[in-house]
Amino acid sequence: MTSTIFGFHTITTKLRHDADSIVEILISKNRIDPRSQKLRKDVISRGIKLREVAPERIQAIVPNGNHQGVVALVNQQRMRRSEEDLFDNLEGAPVLLALDGVSDPQNMGAIFRSAACFGVGGILVPKDNSVGVTETVTRVSCGGTDIVPYYPVTNLVRTVRKLKDCGYWVVGADMNGDKAISEVDFSGPVVVVFGGEGSGMRRLTRENCDFLANIPIGPALDSLNVSVSIGILLYEISRQRSKFIQPL
Amino acid sequence: MTSTIFGFHTITTKLRHDADSIVEILISKNRIDPRSQKLRKDVISRGIKLREVAPERIQAIVPNGNHQGVVALVNQQRMRRSEEDLFDNLEGAPVLLALDGVSDPQNMGAIFRSAACFGVGGILVPKDNSVGVTETVTRVSCGGTDIVPYYPVTNLVRTVRKLKDCGYWVVGADMNGDKAISEVDFSGPVVVVFGGEGSGMRRLTRENCDFLANIPIGPALDSLNVSVSIGILLYEISRQRSKFIQPL
Repeated sequence: MTSTIFGFHTITTKLRHDADSIVEILISKNRIDPRSQKLRKDVISRGIKLREVAPERIQAIVPNGNHQGVVALVNQQRMRRSEEDLFDNLEGAPVLLALDGVSDPQNMGAIFRSAACFGVGGILVPKDNSVGVTETVTRVSCGGTDIVPYYPVTNLVRTVRKLKDCGYWVVGADMNGDKAISEVDFSGPVVVVFGGEGSGMRRLTRENCDFLANIPIGPALDSLNVSVSIGILLYEISRQRSKFIQPL
Repeated sequence: MTSTIFGFHTITTKLRHDADSIVEILISKNRIDPRSQKLRKDVISRGIKLREVAPERIQAIVPNGNHQGVVALVNQQRMRRSEEDLFDNLEGAPVLLALDGVSDPQNMGAIFRSAACFGVGGILVPKDNSVGVTETVTRVSCGGTDIVPYYPVTNLVRTVRKLKDCGYWVVGADMNGDKAISEVDFSGPVVVVFGGEGSGMRRLTRENCDFLANIPIGPALDSLNVSVSIGILLYEISRQRSKFIQPL
Protein backbone atom coordinates (compact mmCIF):
# COMPACT_ATOMS: atom_id res chain seq x y z
CA MET A 1 0.00 0.00 0.00
CA THR A 2 1.36 3.39 -0.97
CA SER A 3 0.40 6.91 0.02
CA THR A 4 1.41 10.48 -0.63
CA ILE A 5 3.24 12.80 1.74
CA PHE A 6 4.14 16.42 0.98
CA GLY A 7 5.98 19.52 2.11
CA PHE A 8 9.69 19.99 2.83
CA HIS A 9 9.68 19.24 6.54
CA THR A 10 7.76 15.98 6.24
CA ILE A 11 9.77 14.75 3.27
CA THR A 12 13.13 15.70 4.77
CA THR A 13 12.24 13.80 7.96
CA LYS A 14 11.21 10.80 5.87
CA LEU A 15 14.50 10.92 3.98
CA ARG A 16 16.46 11.02 7.19
CA HIS A 17 14.70 8.22 9.05
CA ASP A 18 12.95 5.98 6.60
CA ALA A 19 14.32 6.68 3.14
CA ASP A 20 13.77 3.05 2.10
CA SER A 21 10.01 3.50 2.14
CA ILE A 22 10.11 6.29 -0.49
CA VAL A 23 9.08 5.08 -3.92
CA GLU A 24 9.67 8.37 -5.73
CA ILE A 25 9.68 12.12 -5.24
CA LEU A 26 7.99 14.68 -7.50
CA ILE A 27 9.22 18.25 -7.39
CA SER A 28 7.86 21.30 -9.15
CA LYS A 29 10.12 22.54 -11.99
CA ASN A 30 9.75 26.14 -10.88
CA ARG A 31 11.23 25.51 -7.42
CA ILE A 32 14.87 26.55 -7.87
CA ASP A 33 15.53 28.08 -4.44
CA PRO A 34 18.40 26.77 -2.24
CA ARG A 35 16.09 24.61 -0.09
CA SER A 36 14.74 22.81 -3.15
CA GLN A 37 18.21 22.39 -4.63
CA LYS A 38 19.44 20.86 -1.40
CA LEU A 39 16.52 18.44 -1.42
CA ARG A 40 17.20 17.48 -5.07
CA LYS A 41 20.85 16.75 -4.24
CA ASP A 42 19.89 14.72 -1.18
CA VAL A 43 17.32 12.66 -3.07
CA ILE A 44 19.67 11.91 -5.96
CA SER A 45 22.58 11.03 -3.66
CA ARG A 46 20.37 8.42 -1.99
CA GLY A 47 19.49 6.86 -5.32
CA ILE A 48 15.81 7.70 -5.00
CA LYS A 49 13.84 8.39 -8.17
CA LEU A 50 13.25 12.14 -8.65
CA ARG A 51 10.81 13.57 -11.18
CA GLU A 52 10.68 17.23 -12.25
CA VAL A 53 7.07 18.07 -13.06
CA ALA A 54 4.89 21.10 -13.86
CA PRO A 55 3.57 22.96 -10.78
CA GLU A 56 0.02 22.09 -11.84
CA ARG A 57 0.85 18.42 -11.51
CA ILE A 58 1.76 18.80 -7.83
CA GLN A 59 -1.34 20.91 -7.28
CA ALA A 60 -3.50 18.18 -8.80
CA ILE A 61 -2.00 15.54 -6.50
CA VAL A 62 -2.36 17.68 -3.36
CA PRO A 63 -5.24 20.08 -4.04
CA ASN A 64 -5.82 21.13 -0.42
CA GLY A 65 -2.47 20.94 1.34
CA ASN A 66 0.57 23.16 1.77
CA HIS A 67 2.70 21.00 -0.53
CA GLN A 68 5.38 23.65 -1.21
CA GLY A 69 5.91 22.11 -4.64
CA VAL A 70 7.10 18.72 -3.47
CA VAL A 71 5.38 15.39 -2.91
CA ALA A 72 6.63 11.86 -2.25
CA LEU A 73 5.01 8.52 -2.93
CA VAL A 74 5.77 6.22 0.00
CA ASN A 75 5.11 2.68 1.12
CA GLN A 76 2.68 3.16 3.96
CA GLN A 77 2.30 1.65 7.40
CA ARG A 78 5.75 0.16 7.68
CA MET A 79 5.61 0.84 11.43
CA ARG A 80 2.39 -1.11 11.93
CA ARG A 81 3.38 -4.28 13.77
CA SER A 82 1.84 -7.41 15.23
CA GLU A 83 1.60 -8.27 18.91
CA GLU A 84 4.23 -10.99 18.44
CA ASP A 85 6.65 -8.37 17.15
CA LEU A 86 6.07 -6.43 20.37
CA PHE A 87 7.06 -9.33 22.60
CA ASP A 88 10.03 -10.10 20.37
CA ASN A 89 11.34 -6.56 20.75
CA LEU A 90 10.72 -5.61 24.37
CA GLU A 91 14.36 -4.90 25.06
CA GLY A 92 14.27 -1.82 22.91
CA ALA A 93 11.06 -0.56 24.51
CA PRO A 94 11.48 0.56 28.11
CA VAL A 95 8.54 2.97 27.72
CA LEU A 96 5.31 2.01 25.95
CA LEU A 97 2.04 3.90 25.57
CA ALA A 98 -1.33 2.14 25.66
CA LEU A 99 -4.17 4.33 24.35
CA ASP A 100 -7.62 3.08 25.27
CA GLY A 101 -9.96 4.93 22.97
CA VAL A 102 -8.17 7.95 21.45
CA SER A 103 -10.45 8.86 18.53
CA ASP A 104 -9.36 12.31 17.35
CA PRO A 105 -6.77 12.23 14.54
CA GLN A 106 -5.30 15.62 15.60
CA ASN A 107 -4.63 14.19 19.05
CA MET A 108 -3.29 10.91 17.69
CA GLY A 109 -0.93 12.80 15.36
CA ALA A 110 0.39 14.98 18.18
CA ILE A 111 0.83 11.86 20.35
CA PHE A 112 2.96 10.17 17.65
CA ARG A 113 5.03 13.35 17.34
CA SER A 114 5.67 13.51 21.11
CA ALA A 115 6.33 9.76 21.26
CA ALA A 116 8.98 10.11 18.54
CA CYS A 117 10.55 13.12 20.29
CA PHE A 118 10.82 11.27 23.61
CA GLY A 119 11.87 7.89 22.18
CA VAL A 120 8.79 5.84 23.07
CA GLY A 121 9.23 2.17 22.12
CA GLY A 122 5.72 1.61 20.81
CA ILE A 123 2.09 2.72 20.83
CA LEU A 124 -0.52 0.06 21.66
CA VAL A 125 -4.15 0.57 20.70
CA PRO A 126 -7.20 -1.69 20.77
CA LYS A 127 -8.19 -2.60 17.19
CA ASP A 128 -11.85 -1.86 17.86
CA ASN A 129 -11.51 1.35 19.86
CA SER A 130 -9.05 3.78 18.28
CA VAL A 131 -8.49 6.04 15.32
CA GLY A 132 -6.05 4.40 12.91
CA VAL A 133 -2.93 5.94 11.36
CA THR A 134 -4.88 8.02 8.86
CA GLU A 135 -3.50 10.69 6.53
CA THR A 136 -4.35 13.39 9.07
CA VAL A 137 -2.57 11.47 11.84
CA THR A 138 0.47 11.05 9.59
CA ARG A 139 0.55 14.73 8.63
CA VAL A 140 0.04 16.05 12.17
CA SER A 141 2.70 13.67 13.51
CA CYS A 142 5.36 15.49 11.41
CA GLY A 143 7.11 12.21 10.73
CA GLY A 144 6.34 10.52 14.06
CA THR A 145 4.25 7.78 12.44
CA ASP A 146 7.35 6.70 10.51
CA ILE A 147 9.41 6.40 13.66
CA VAL A 148 7.27 4.93 16.44
CA PRO A 149 6.09 1.31 16.08
CA TYR A 150 2.33 0.97 16.26
CA TYR A 151 0.59 -2.13 17.63
CA PRO A 152 -3.15 -2.58 17.06
CA VAL A 153 -4.07 -5.41 19.45
CA THR A 154 -7.24 -7.47 19.76
CA ASN A 155 -7.51 -7.21 23.52
CA LEU A 156 -5.65 -4.34 25.17
CA VAL A 157 -6.16 -5.64 28.71
CA ARG A 158 -4.72 -9.03 27.82
CA THR A 159 -1.67 -7.45 26.17
CA VAL A 160 -1.11 -5.19 29.17
CA ARG A 161 -1.32 -8.23 31.50
CA LYS A 162 1.28 -10.05 29.41
CA LEU A 163 3.55 -7.00 29.66
CA LYS A 164 3.15 -7.15 33.46
CA ASP A 165 4.36 -10.74 33.33
CA CYS A 166 7.39 -9.50 31.40
CA GLY A 167 8.29 -7.10 34.21
CA TYR A 168 6.53 -3.96 33.04
CA TRP A 169 4.99 -1.61 35.54
CA VAL A 170 1.50 -0.48 34.41
CA VAL A 171 0.71 3.15 35.26
CA GLY A 172 -2.71 4.55 34.40
CA ALA A 173 -2.93 8.30 33.82
CA ASP A 174 -6.02 9.62 35.57
CA MET A 175 -6.83 13.05 36.93
CA ASN A 176 -8.10 11.39 40.11
CA GLY A 177 -5.07 9.12 40.45
CA ASP A 178 -3.44 8.41 43.82
CA LYS A 179 -0.01 9.93 43.20
CA ALA A 180 1.35 12.91 41.29
CA ILE A 181 3.44 11.81 38.30
CA SER A 182 6.53 13.47 39.80
CA GLU A 183 6.23 11.04 42.76
CA VAL A 184 6.13 7.96 40.56
CA ASP A 185 9.39 6.09 40.00
CA PHE A 186 9.70 5.73 36.22
CA SER A 187 13.16 4.16 36.19
CA GLY A 188 12.05 0.66 35.10
CA PRO A 189 10.14 -0.66 32.08
CA VAL A 190 6.74 0.98 32.07
CA VAL A 191 3.50 1.00 30.07
CA VAL A 192 1.56 4.21 30.56
CA VAL A 193 -2.16 3.80 29.91
CA PHE A 194 -4.37 6.70 28.81
CA GLY A 195 -8.10 6.82 28.14
CA GLY A 196 -9.72 8.53 25.16
CA GLU A 197 -11.00 12.10 24.80
CA GLY A 198 -14.49 11.50 26.07
CA SER A 199 -14.98 8.72 28.50
CA GLY A 200 -11.46 7.96 29.68
CA MET A 201 -10.18 4.46 30.34
CA ARG A 202 -12.58 1.54 30.28
CA ARG A 203 -13.22 -0.08 33.66
CA LEU A 204 -11.31 -3.28 32.96
CA THR A 205 -8.34 -1.35 31.57
CA ARG A 206 -8.27 0.79 34.70
CA GLU A 207 -8.49 -2.21 37.01
CA ASN A 208 -5.43 -3.71 35.40
CA CYS A 209 -3.18 -0.76 36.21
CA ASP A 210 -0.71 -1.21 39.07
CA PHE A 211 -1.77 2.27 40.14
CA LEU A 212 -3.17 5.54 38.83
CA ALA A 213 -1.09 8.71 38.59
CA ASN A 214 -2.30 12.28 38.10
CA ILE A 215 -0.89 15.47 36.62
CA PRO A 216 -1.55 18.05 39.35
CA ILE A 217 -3.66 20.92 38.03
CA GLY A 218 -5.67 23.71 39.61
CA PRO A 219 -9.43 23.64 40.19
CA ALA A 220 -10.50 25.67 37.14
CA LEU A 221 -11.01 22.79 34.71
CA ASP A 222 -11.36 19.02 35.04
CA SER A 223 -8.63 17.88 32.72
CA LEU A 224 -5.98 18.60 30.11
CA ASN A 225 -6.18 17.61 26.46
CA VAL A 226 -5.05 13.98 26.06
CA SER A 227 -2.12 14.76 23.75
CA VAL A 228 -0.92 17.49 26.11
CA SER A 229 -1.21 15.07 29.07
CA ILE A 230 0.86 12.48 27.21
CA GLY A 231 3.50 15.09 26.34
CA ILE A 232 3.75 16.09 30.01
CA LEU A 233 4.01 12.50 31.17
CA LEU A 234 6.72 11.65 28.63
CA TYR A 235 8.61 14.78 29.66
CA GLU A 236 8.42 13.72 33.33
CA ILE A 237 9.69 10.22 32.54
CA SER A 238 12.50 11.66 30.45
CA ARG A 239 13.41 14.21 33.15
CA GLN A 240 13.65 11.48 35.79
CA ARG A 241 15.67 9.17 33.58
CA SER A 242 18.15 11.82 32.55
CA LYS A 243 18.93 12.27 36.24
CA PHE A 244 19.11 8.69 37.44
CA ILE A 245 19.86 6.51 34.48
CA GLN A 246 20.46 6.94 30.79
CA PRO A 247 17.95 9.17 28.98
CA LEU A 248 15.12 7.53 27.08
CA MET B 1 -21.82 40.61 21.30
CA THR B 2 -23.38 37.26 22.14
CA SER B 3 -22.62 33.74 21.06
CA THR B 4 -23.84 30.20 21.59
CA ILE B 5 -22.14 27.47 23.57
CA PHE B 6 -23.44 23.94 23.98
CA GLY B 7 -23.04 20.58 25.70
CA PHE B 8 -23.07 19.75 29.41
CA HIS B 9 -19.36 20.01 30.12
CA THR B 10 -18.93 23.43 28.51
CA ILE B 11 -22.08 24.89 30.06
CA THR B 12 -21.35 23.49 33.53
CA THR B 13 -17.88 25.02 33.40
CA LYS B 14 -19.37 28.32 32.31
CA LEU B 15 -21.86 28.21 35.19
CA ARG B 16 -19.12 27.53 37.68
CA HIS B 17 -16.67 30.19 36.55
CA ASP B 18 -18.47 32.84 34.60
CA ALA B 19 -22.19 32.51 35.25
CA ASP B 20 -22.69 36.28 34.88
CA SER B 21 -21.97 36.10 31.19
CA ILE B 22 -24.88 33.68 30.54
CA VAL B 23 -27.91 35.40 29.05
CA GLU B 24 -30.16 32.32 28.98
CA ILE B 25 -30.08 28.54 28.72
CA LEU B 26 -32.24 26.41 26.40
CA ILE B 27 -32.77 22.77 27.28
CA SER B 28 -34.56 20.07 25.34
CA LYS B 29 -37.88 19.03 26.95
CA ASN B 30 -37.12 15.36 26.41
CA ARG B 31 -33.97 15.43 28.55
CA ILE B 32 -35.20 14.20 31.93
CA ASP B 33 -32.14 12.21 33.06
CA PRO B 34 -30.39 13.01 36.38
CA ARG B 35 -27.63 15.05 34.71
CA SER B 36 -30.17 17.32 33.02
CA GLN B 37 -32.23 17.66 36.20
CA LYS B 38 -29.13 18.66 38.13
CA LEU B 39 -28.34 21.28 35.49
CA ARG B 40 -31.92 22.66 35.62
CA LYS B 41 -31.70 22.98 39.39
CA ASP B 42 -28.33 24.68 39.20
CA VAL B 43 -29.46 27.16 36.53
CA ILE B 44 -32.64 28.08 38.40
CA SER B 45 -30.86 28.46 41.73
CA ARG B 46 -28.51 30.98 40.12
CA GLY B 47 -31.44 33.01 38.82
CA ILE B 48 -30.51 32.42 35.19
CA LYS B 49 -33.32 32.28 32.64
CA LEU B 50 -34.09 28.67 31.62
CA ARG B 51 -36.26 27.74 28.64
CA GLU B 52 -37.66 24.28 27.95
CA VAL B 53 -37.85 23.81 24.19
CA ALA B 54 -38.55 21.10 21.62
CA PRO B 55 -35.50 18.96 20.69
CA GLU B 56 -35.77 20.24 17.09
CA ARG B 57 -35.19 23.77 18.33
CA ILE B 58 -31.82 22.86 19.86
CA GLN B 59 -30.91 20.92 16.72
CA ALA B 60 -31.70 23.99 14.59
CA ILE B 61 -29.44 26.21 16.72
CA VAL B 62 -26.54 23.73 16.72
CA PRO B 63 -26.91 21.66 13.55
CA ASN B 64 -23.39 20.23 13.54
CA GLY B 65 -22.31 19.94 17.14
CA ASN B 66 -22.71 17.44 19.98
CA HIS B 67 -25.14 19.70 21.86
CA GLN B 68 -26.60 16.95 24.10
CA GLY B 69 -29.87 18.88 24.14
CA VAL B 70 -28.59 21.99 25.86
CA VAL B 71 -27.35 25.35 24.60
CA ALA B 72 -26.56 28.66 26.27
CA LEU B 73 -26.55 32.17 24.91
CA VAL B 74 -23.58 34.01 26.39
CA ASN B 75 -21.98 37.41 26.27
CA GLN B 76 -18.81 36.77 24.37
CA GLN B 77 -15.18 37.82 24.82
CA ARG B 78 -15.47 38.94 28.39
CA MET B 79 -11.91 37.74 28.93
CA ARG B 80 -10.54 39.90 26.11
CA ARG B 81 -8.67 42.73 27.82
CA SER B 82 -6.63 45.81 26.96
CA GLU B 83 -2.94 46.24 27.60
CA GLU B 84 -3.73 48.75 30.36
CA ASP B 85 -5.76 46.10 32.15
CA LEU B 86 -2.71 43.87 32.06
CA PHE B 87 -0.49 46.38 33.80
CA ASP B 88 -3.25 47.14 36.32
CA ASN B 89 -3.51 43.46 37.26
CA LEU B 90 0.06 42.19 37.32
CA GLU B 91 -0.14 41.07 40.93
CA GLY B 92 -2.50 38.28 40.04
CA ALA B 93 -0.35 37.14 37.13
CA PRO B 94 2.94 35.56 38.17
CA VAL B 95 3.01 33.51 34.96
CA LEU B 96 2.11 34.94 31.55
CA LEU B 97 2.30 33.41 28.10
CA ALA B 98 3.30 35.45 25.04
CA LEU B 99 2.48 33.69 21.77
CA ASP B 100 4.24 35.11 18.75
CA GLY B 101 2.36 33.74 15.76
CA VAL B 102 0.22 30.78 16.85
CA SER B 103 -2.18 30.41 13.93
CA ASP B 104 -3.89 27.04 14.34
CA PRO B 105 -7.19 27.20 16.25
CA GLN B 106 -6.80 23.61 17.51
CA ASN B 107 -3.47 24.56 19.06
CA MET B 108 -4.78 27.84 20.46
CA GLY B 109 -7.75 26.04 22.03
CA ALA B 110 -5.51 23.43 23.66
CA ILE B 111 -3.23 26.23 24.90
CA PHE B 112 -6.15 28.03 26.60
CA ARG B 113 -7.22 24.73 28.18
CA SER B 114 -3.72 24.07 29.59
CA ALA B 115 -3.38 27.70 30.68
CA ALA B 116 -6.65 27.43 32.63
CA CYS B 117 -5.57 24.12 34.20
CA PHE B 118 -2.24 25.55 35.36
CA GLY B 119 -3.57 28.96 36.44
CA VAL B 120 -1.81 31.17 33.89
CA GLY B 121 -2.52 34.87 34.53
CA GLY B 122 -2.93 35.88 30.89
CA ILE B 123 -2.19 35.11 27.26
CA LEU B 124 -0.57 37.88 25.20
CA VAL B 125 -0.73 37.81 21.42
CA PRO B 126 0.21 40.32 18.73
CA LYS B 127 -2.95 41.69 17.12
CA ASP B 128 -1.55 41.22 13.63
CA ASN B 129 0.03 37.78 14.01
CA SER B 130 -2.27 35.35 15.78
CA VAL B 131 -5.48 33.40 15.44
CA GLY B 132 -8.23 35.08 17.50
CA VAL B 133 -10.57 33.44 20.00
CA THR B 134 -12.74 31.84 17.34
CA GLU B 135 -15.56 29.36 17.90
CA THR B 136 -13.16 26.47 17.31
CA VAL B 137 -10.69 27.90 19.83
CA THR B 138 -13.51 28.28 22.37
CA ARG B 139 -14.79 24.74 21.82
CA VAL B 140 -11.36 23.09 21.92
CA SER B 141 -10.44 25.05 25.07
CA CYS B 142 -13.26 23.24 27.00
CA GLY B 143 -14.01 26.41 28.93
CA GLY B 144 -10.45 27.77 29.08
CA THR B 145 -11.29 30.86 27.01
CA ASP B 146 -13.77 31.85 29.73
CA ILE B 147 -11.13 31.63 32.44
CA VAL B 148 -7.83 32.95 31.10
CA PRO B 149 -7.58 36.68 30.28
CA TYR B 150 -6.52 37.32 26.72
CA TYR B 151 -4.55 40.41 25.68
CA PRO B 152 -4.20 41.25 21.97
CA VAL B 153 -1.41 43.86 21.89
CA THR B 154 -0.22 46.14 19.13
CA ASN B 155 3.46 45.49 19.64
CA LEU B 156 4.38 42.30 21.46
CA VAL B 157 8.04 43.23 21.87
CA ARG B 158 7.17 46.57 23.47
CA THR B 159 4.76 44.90 25.90
CA VAL B 160 7.34 42.29 26.83
CA ARG B 161 9.91 45.04 27.45
CA LYS B 162 7.48 46.83 29.74
CA LEU B 163 6.93 43.59 31.65
CA LYS B 164 10.71 43.34 32.09
CA ASP B 165 10.65 46.82 33.64
CA CYS B 166 7.99 45.52 36.03
CA GLY B 167 10.29 42.75 37.25
CA TYR B 168 9.26 39.94 34.93
CA TRP B 169 11.81 37.45 33.70
CA VAL B 170 11.40 36.80 29.95
CA VAL B 171 12.08 33.19 28.95
CA GLY B 172 11.89 32.21 25.30
CA ALA B 173 11.03 28.59 24.55
CA ASP B 174 13.30 27.36 21.79
CA MET B 175 14.48 23.88 20.88
CA ASN B 176 18.00 25.29 20.51
CA GLY B 177 17.86 27.20 23.78
CA ASP B 178 20.84 27.38 26.16
CA LYS B 179 19.33 25.64 29.18
CA ALA B 180 16.90 22.79 29.78
CA ILE B 181 13.63 24.03 31.29
CA SER B 182 14.24 21.96 34.42
CA GLU B 183 17.40 24.03 35.01
CA VAL B 184 15.57 27.34 34.80
CA ASP B 185 14.44 28.97 38.06
CA PHE B 186 10.75 29.72 37.59
CA SER B 187 10.09 30.96 41.12
CA GLY B 188 9.61 34.64 40.20
CA PRO B 189 7.21 36.45 37.86
CA VAL B 190 7.83 35.15 34.36
CA VAL B 191 6.62 35.64 30.80
CA VAL B 192 7.21 32.59 28.66
CA VAL B 193 7.46 33.41 24.96
CA PHE B 194 6.64 30.86 22.26
CA GLY B 195 6.79 31.15 18.47
CA GLY B 196 4.11 29.91 16.08
CA GLU B 197 3.74 26.55 14.37
CA GLY B 198 5.79 27.28 11.32
CA SER B 199 8.52 29.83 11.67
CA GLY B 200 8.95 30.12 15.42
CA MET B 201 9.63 33.41 17.19
CA ARG B 202 10.36 36.52 15.17
CA ARG B 203 13.93 37.79 15.46
CA LEU B 204 13.12 40.87 17.52
CA THR B 205 10.94 38.85 19.89
CA ARG B 206 13.75 36.37 20.39
CA GLU B 207 16.31 39.10 20.99
CA ASN B 208 14.19 40.51 23.80
CA CYS B 209 14.21 37.29 25.82
CA ASP B 210 16.49 37.18 28.86
CA PHE B 211 17.45 33.72 27.69
CA LEU B 212 16.20 30.77 25.67
CA ALA B 213 15.22 27.47 27.29
CA ASN B 214 14.68 24.10 25.63
CA ILE B 215 12.64 20.98 26.32
CA PRO B 216 15.21 18.19 25.98
CA ILE B 217 14.14 15.68 23.32
CA GLY B 218 15.88 12.92 21.40
CA PRO B 219 17.27 13.27 17.87
CA ALA B 220 14.37 11.68 15.96
CA LEU B 221 12.39 14.86 15.25
CA ASP B 222 13.12 18.57 15.42
CA SER B 223 10.37 19.72 17.72
CA LEU B 224 7.17 19.06 19.64
CA ASN B 225 3.77 20.48 18.78
CA VAL B 226 3.45 24.03 20.18
CA SER B 227 0.48 23.25 22.45
CA VAL B 228 2.25 20.17 23.82
CA SER B 229 5.41 22.27 24.44
CA ILE B 230 3.38 24.84 26.34
CA GLY B 231 1.70 22.12 28.42
CA ILE B 232 5.11 20.70 29.34
CA LEU B 233 6.49 24.10 30.23
CA LEU B 234 3.51 24.97 32.43
CA TYR B 235 3.81 21.59 34.13
CA GLU B 236 7.50 22.23 34.83
CA ILE B 237 6.77 25.68 36.29
CA SER B 238 3.98 24.24 38.42
CA ARG B 239 6.17 21.35 39.59
CA GLN B 240 8.93 23.73 40.69
CA ARG B 241 6.53 26.06 42.45
CA SER B 242 4.74 23.34 44.36
CA LYS B 243 8.10 22.40 45.81
CA PHE B 244 9.51 25.77 46.67
CA ILE B 245 6.67 28.21 46.98
CA GLN B 246 2.91 28.11 46.75
CA PRO B 247 1.49 26.38 43.67
CA LEU B 248 0.47 28.48 40.71
